[in-house]
This record gives sequence, C-alpha cells and structure tokens, in this order.
Amino acid sequence: MKFSDYLIEKSKEIWKEFLPNKFLREIAEDKIKKEAFEKWLSNDYNFVKNALRFMNIISAKIPDKLIPFMTESICYIKEELKMFEEKAKEMKINLNNKVSFICQSYSNFLISSAFIHTFFENLAIYYCEEKAYYEAWNWVKKHVKNNSYKKFVEHWSSEDFRLYVEKIEEILNEFANQAGEYEKKEAEKLFIETSKFEKLFWDMAYE
Amino acid sequence: MKFSDYLIEKSKEIWKEFLPNKFLREIAEDKIKKEAFEKWLSNDYNFVKNALRFMNIISAKIPDKLIPFMTESICYIKEELKMFEEKAKEMKINLNNKVSFICQSYSNFLISSAFIHTFFENLAIYYCEEKAYYEAWNWVKKHVKNNSYKKFVEHWSSEDFRLYVEKIEEILNEFANQAGEYEKKEAEKLFIETSKFEKLFWDMAYE
Amino acid sequence: MKFSDYLIEKSKEIWKEFLPNKFLREIAEDKIKKEAFEKWLSNDYNFVKNALRFMNIISAKIPDKLIPFMTESICYIKEELKMFEEKAKEMKINLNNKVSFICQSYSNFLISSAFIHTFFENLAIYYCEEKAYYEAWNWVKKHVKNNSYKKFVEHWSSEDFRLYVEKIEEILNEFANQAGEYEKKEAEKLFIETSKFEKLFWDMAYE
Amino acid sequence: MKFSDYLIEKSKEIWKEFLPNKFLREIAEDKIKKEAFEKWLSNDYNFVKNALRFMNIISAKIPDKLIPFMTESICYIKEELKMFEEKAKEMKINLNNKVSFICQSYSNFLISSAFIHTFFENLAIYYCEEKAYYEAWNWVKKHVKNNSYKKFVEHWSSEDFRLYVEKIEEILNEFANQAGEYEKKEAEKLFIETSKFEKLFWDMAYE
Repeated sequence: MKFSDYLIEKSKEIWKEFLPNKFLREIAEDKIKKEAFEKWLSNDYNFVKNALRFMNIISAKIPDKLIPFMTESICYIKEELKMFEEKAKEMKINLNNKVSFICQSYSNFLISSAFIHTFFENLAIYYCEEKAYYEAWNWVKKHVKNNSYKKFVEHWSSEDFRLYVEKIEEILNEFANQAGEYEKKEAEKLFIETSKFEKLFWDMAYE
Repeated sequence: MKFSDYLIEKSKEIWKEFLPNKFLREIAEDKIKKEAFEKWLSNDYNFVKNALRFMNIISAKIPDKLIPFMTESICYIKEELKMFEEKAKEMKINLNNKVSFICQSYSNFLISSAFIHTFFENLAIYYCEEKAYYEAWNWVKKHVKNNSYKKFVEHWSSEDFRLYVEKIEEILNEFANQAGEYEKKEAEKLFIETSKFEKLFWDMAYE
Repeated sequence: MKFSDYLIEKSKEIWKEFLPNKFLREIAEDKIKKEAFEKWLSNDYNFVKNALRFMNIISAKIPDKLIPFMTESICYIKEELKMFEEKAKEMKINLNNKVSFICQSYSNFLISSAFIHTFFENLAIYYCEEKAYYEAWNWVKKHVKNNSYKKFVEHWSSEDFRLYVEKIEEILNEFANQAGEYEKKEAEKLFIETSKFEKLFWDMAYE
Repeated sequence: MKFSDYLIEKSKEIWKEFLPNKFLREIAEDKIKKEAFEKWLSNDYNFVKNALRFMNIISAKIPDKLIPFMTESICYIKEELKMFEEKAKEMKINLNNKVSFICQSYSNFLISSAFIHTFFENLAIYYCEEKAYYEAWNWVKKHVKNNSYKKFVEHWSSEDFRLYVEKIEEILNEFANQAGEYEKKEAEKLFIETSKFEKLFWDMAYE
C-alpha cells in the first residue's frame, strides 16, 4: 500500500465529515450567504499567507533535488492570493477581517510543525492540505449548478492542480520508502491532525 | 512608563477576566473537583514541555550576555515537570490524558512565535506567561483557606518566582529601550495574544 | 543618510578589495582559465541553492505585506539555477564538484543568521549579497572586451536586476526607519560579515 | 554494529589526525605557549555559547521523553562557561578576543544544521562533539606530566562526562533503530563533517 493511501485510509472517518460539508454544498447550489462566504474568504486569504510561510520553512529543510519543485510550488500557490483579492474586490469583501481562532490555530500548527518536524513529516501535512482541497473542490465541480464561484471551483479542481497534488503524493511516497518507522508514525499523527483542521476550517464559516 | 507596565495596561481588561477566575477560586477554597484539577494538571504538564521548547528556541536567538539567564531559566522551569509528576502520583492522576485544543493551540502559538518573531518580541510573550502565573497564584495565596494544592501555590507565589519574573521584566525593559517602534508594536500584539491564551487556559479545565 | 548608504560606507574598505578583483578582471578580458571558472560556477550553483534556503527562512518571518515581494524574489532567483545548468552543459562542467570550505561557511552563515536574527537584520545580509553582485557584474559590463560569459554579465548587470536590488534597498530603508538602535547595530555587523564573505568567495576560485 | 560505532569507524582517519594533536601534546607536557592556549580558550568559550544555541534548537525538536535529558544537558554544559571564565581570570586572558574564522564556521555549521536537519541527524553531531572531547582529554589524562590545566583535563575525562557521553550514545543508537536509510546517511555525513571541524579547531590555536 502506498504511504499516501495508508494516510488517507487512517483519516477516512475525518474526511467523511468534510467531503462534502455544508459550505461545499452551499457553494455548489449557489445558496451560500455572503456572510459565510466572506468569513471563509478572508480567513482562507490569511491562511494562504501562513501556508506560504509553512512552505518556505520546509523548503529550507528539503534535500537539494527537491528545491526546483518546492520553489515552483511557492510561485504557484502565491498566485492564489491574487484570486482571493479579485473575488474580494468583485464582491466588496474586506479581506482584513478579524482572523478566526480556528484559522490562527491552524496556521500556528503549520508553522510550529514546519520548524519542529522533519521535512518528510511535513510533507505529510502538505499533502493532506492540498489533497483535501482538491477533493473538496472536485466534489463541488461534480455537483455545481451554477458558477458564481467558478474560478475557485475551476482552480482547485483543475487538471493542473490535480497533477500538482499527484506530484506531492509521489514525493511523499518516494521518501516514505527511505523513512524509518518513527518518522512514519509521526507523519501519520500530523496527517490526522491536519485532517481535523481541514474539517474545522469549513465549519468555521458558520460560527 | 516602563514597557512592561505599558503592556499590562494594554491587556488589563483581559487580565481582569482571569484574575481571579473560577479555577483559582476553587483552588483557594479547596472545592475543586478532581476532574477539573486533573484536566488542568495534565494539560499544564504538556504545556510546560512546550513552554520549554519555546524557551529553547528563543535561547538560541538571544544575545550572548543573556545566555546565563536563559539557560538557568530552562533549568529552573524544567523542575516544574517534577512537581506535576509528584502531584499526579499523589492524586493518581494520569498525566497523559488527551491534550485539549486550547492547550495545543497555545503551544503552537508559542513555538510558531519563537521561530517567527524577534527575541525581543518573544520576551514579551515570556514575560506575560510568567507574570500572569505569578499574579494568579499570588491571588490564591492571599485567599487560600487550606492547603491541598500548597506546593503549587507556594511555588508560583514564592519570593524566588517573584524575583525570576522581575528579572524577565528588567530584561524586557532594557531591550525595549533599544527597540524600534515596529518591534514594540509587535511585542504588544503578542502580549495581548498571550493574555487571551492565559484566560482560555483557565477556562479549559471546565470544558 | 539612508541606512543602505550607511552600511555601504561602513564596508567600503572591504568592497574595494573585490570591486574589481582578479576573477572579474579575467572574466572581462575573457582570460579566465576553465579551472577557475569551473570552481566558481559549481560553488556558486551550490551557493544559490543555499541562498534560496536563506530567502525561504526569512520569507517565513517577514510581515504579511512583504510576502508578495519575497515570494516573487524566490521565483526570480531560482531561475539562476537554470542559467548555471545551461552554462555547465555548454562548457562540459560538472556542477557537483566538491563544495569549497568558503562556500559552505558562507551558506552556513546565511542559514544560521536567517534563523537566529530578525527579518530586518537579515534584510541587510540579503541587500549586501545582491548589491555586491550587481556592482561586481556591472563593473564587468563596463570593462568587458568579449562575451563568452555574456549571459552572466547581462543577467546581473541588467535593468531588471538593478531594479530588484533597488527594491530591496527601499524595503531595507523603510524598516530601518522603524528599527531600534540594537537591531541597526546588529544589521551593520551582519552587512560587514557578508561583505567579507563576498570577497572570500571571489578569491576561492583561485585556491 | 551499533550505529555510534559505525559512525566512528567511518571517521577514523579524521580522528587519527587529532587524537592526539600538537595542542593536546603540549597541554600534557605543560609546554603550551600562553598565546596558543589563549587562542584556544577564547575561541572555545565562544564555541560553547553557540553549542548551547545548537543544543537549545535541537531540544525544541526532540520527542517529549528526551526533554529531561536535553534540558539537564543544557544545565550541565552551561557550567563549562564558568570554568573558562575562572581560568581566564587566573591567567589574565581576555575571553573576548576576535573569534577565528574556523570557530565561527563551526558555530554556523551547528546552528544551520540544528535548524535544517532532523533531531536524529543532529544527535550524530552532538555525539561527535562530546565523544571527540572526551577522547581528546582522556588521552591527555593518560599522558599528563603536570597539572596547570588540571581542571580542564579532569572535567572532560571525568567519570561524569564519560557517563554523559555514553548516555548520548545510547539515545543515538536507540533512535538509529527506528530511523530510515535516508536519515542514517545524512547523520553519517554530518558526523564526518563535525569530525573535520574538531580537527580544524585544534589546529586553529596555532594559526
């Protein structure tokens, strides 16, 4: 069993709770209230900045041969900030709203882990984040009835994004083959932890 | 106005919410339920380990002249772990209970800040943590009616601990004199953030 | 006086030692031996990877508003790796030669500082590195007699690179205005240290 | 074969170069010139401060169960600073002499590795440092003819220090059993790198 499949298997009960969830359903049905969307948008905007910090720190720890992939990933993910800014402008949403406790906790978890844990263990977090987003928005794509949020749906369910997630999966599995039991157990714990945060993040929009 | 006083002034509304609080009152009156005490004890035990990680990281960033003080602080704070272990043994409390979300979030905030922020900004967090504990347990000392939790009360309201907090205050104020506006503003934000976590931590025992 | 000018003023004696130097002169005159160029190329290739690590770590520490600039810088600098790879292919140079002690020391200095020092102090290092490279290759541009190394000369003396260095200078000066005396003194020490490494790096090609 | 023995086996040619060396021989014979001793003393004093930084950073990364050992190690090693200060006072040596390039490079290597590498890989560095010191001073102990440097000889060849090094060895070997091939290869490279620095550090006194 590939290590990535093993991690997803271990977290499947948590993933069921957010694949799909109220937010994704309301996006698909174009029924979401502006307030909930705004809450999600401004928090996710803040989150992406901290996810970049996370990616930056692990990029400093990776072996040389992963430098091209990780630096390109940073260049790729930073573009999401612009997507948020455009949508916020279009919908007259303030992106600098107060950041929710869940969002802050998730960001602090990422940065703390990036520093404390090995690059391999952090690859499990990174894979979880991106895979969960791909699956979430791919679910929306299949159920979407209109397209107010088209750009978001298309971005995270695109072929490009799918290939990007597959590349992370491939790197994770490659290093899993050379990793010891201790590191793999830690990676599993972090994957589960990240999965829980993914769930909490969606719920946050309705708090 | 000393920078330390300025920080406390800026957080006074938050400090009022936990000086005193239900937990401290119940400790003072020896009325606390084992369940609540256990929850606090096992979480604080976990927290101290992560507070040591925080102290370790900032110890790597400090100027040479602070090395003796910070390393001695680590030697001093690590002794608290033994105090928790002894109490747990006495009361047959399991210290490895599930760590609460608040405690984890507080720990991740500390470690993330330790890494991201300057040593001066982190001194503000460190001062907040220790000062808040001294004030909390000093309140208990003044209101205590019995002594089931004597060792804790005495430890954190002792002359030794008071002098230790004063030393942190002195260092913080010394560096504040050489710090720029940007750093001082960041330190203030972190002090307020830490104050909020201090409040949440006490409430956590009753969740 | 702008802080950037102050730093350059303080390091001018060191800068005189490498502006120009034997390596730059031989590049300008197209007289450099393959051995010396190879040594420089393979070491600088390794250095850029570690400079990216340095940039990644400080990118995690910067205020939100600098995220776009720093992530774009990472995307910009990573392209240099390709320039090295192309030249190495053209000249049949092995880029994985043993890394020199100077190059390794410089890289470890960068990564250690990135972690230990404040983002502002690290901006001084970053500015020094890039400014020194711009000035070095701009000297070559003005004295060049041929163009075997045209791509390198053009890259680091280009209008694009000049504007990039100016942007770093601007950010450094902006934060200098809000920085305290302590941080500015530290930044100065690090700028001087970096200047010395810049000098040693050029000499390294002839060891 | 124990992992610690494997590492020492892999570095034996380098260790032969410093076990013993001119400095240790001159210490044993009480023939060392004040200049050389002063150079070593002031550099090693600076080095110990940075070794504490290294220990602090890895202490933040270790699993919970190693916290007592690592914090106690910090408390133990910080005492060496006092030993240096006393000797400097006795011999009227200035401990704040210019730090040598080798010493600085070694310190930057430690701090950079502490941040970049896994705690297991860093245990290999830590073990190398302490084991090399024990073996060096134990050689002196066996060949000493007088005792001007008695305290240093006794400290690093003591039963206490021997047991401390054994404890690090035990922890390293315990985690080696759960480590993957990738981590073990990295640990080996770092052990060899550290061995080279140990050699260079002794030579530095005569530069």
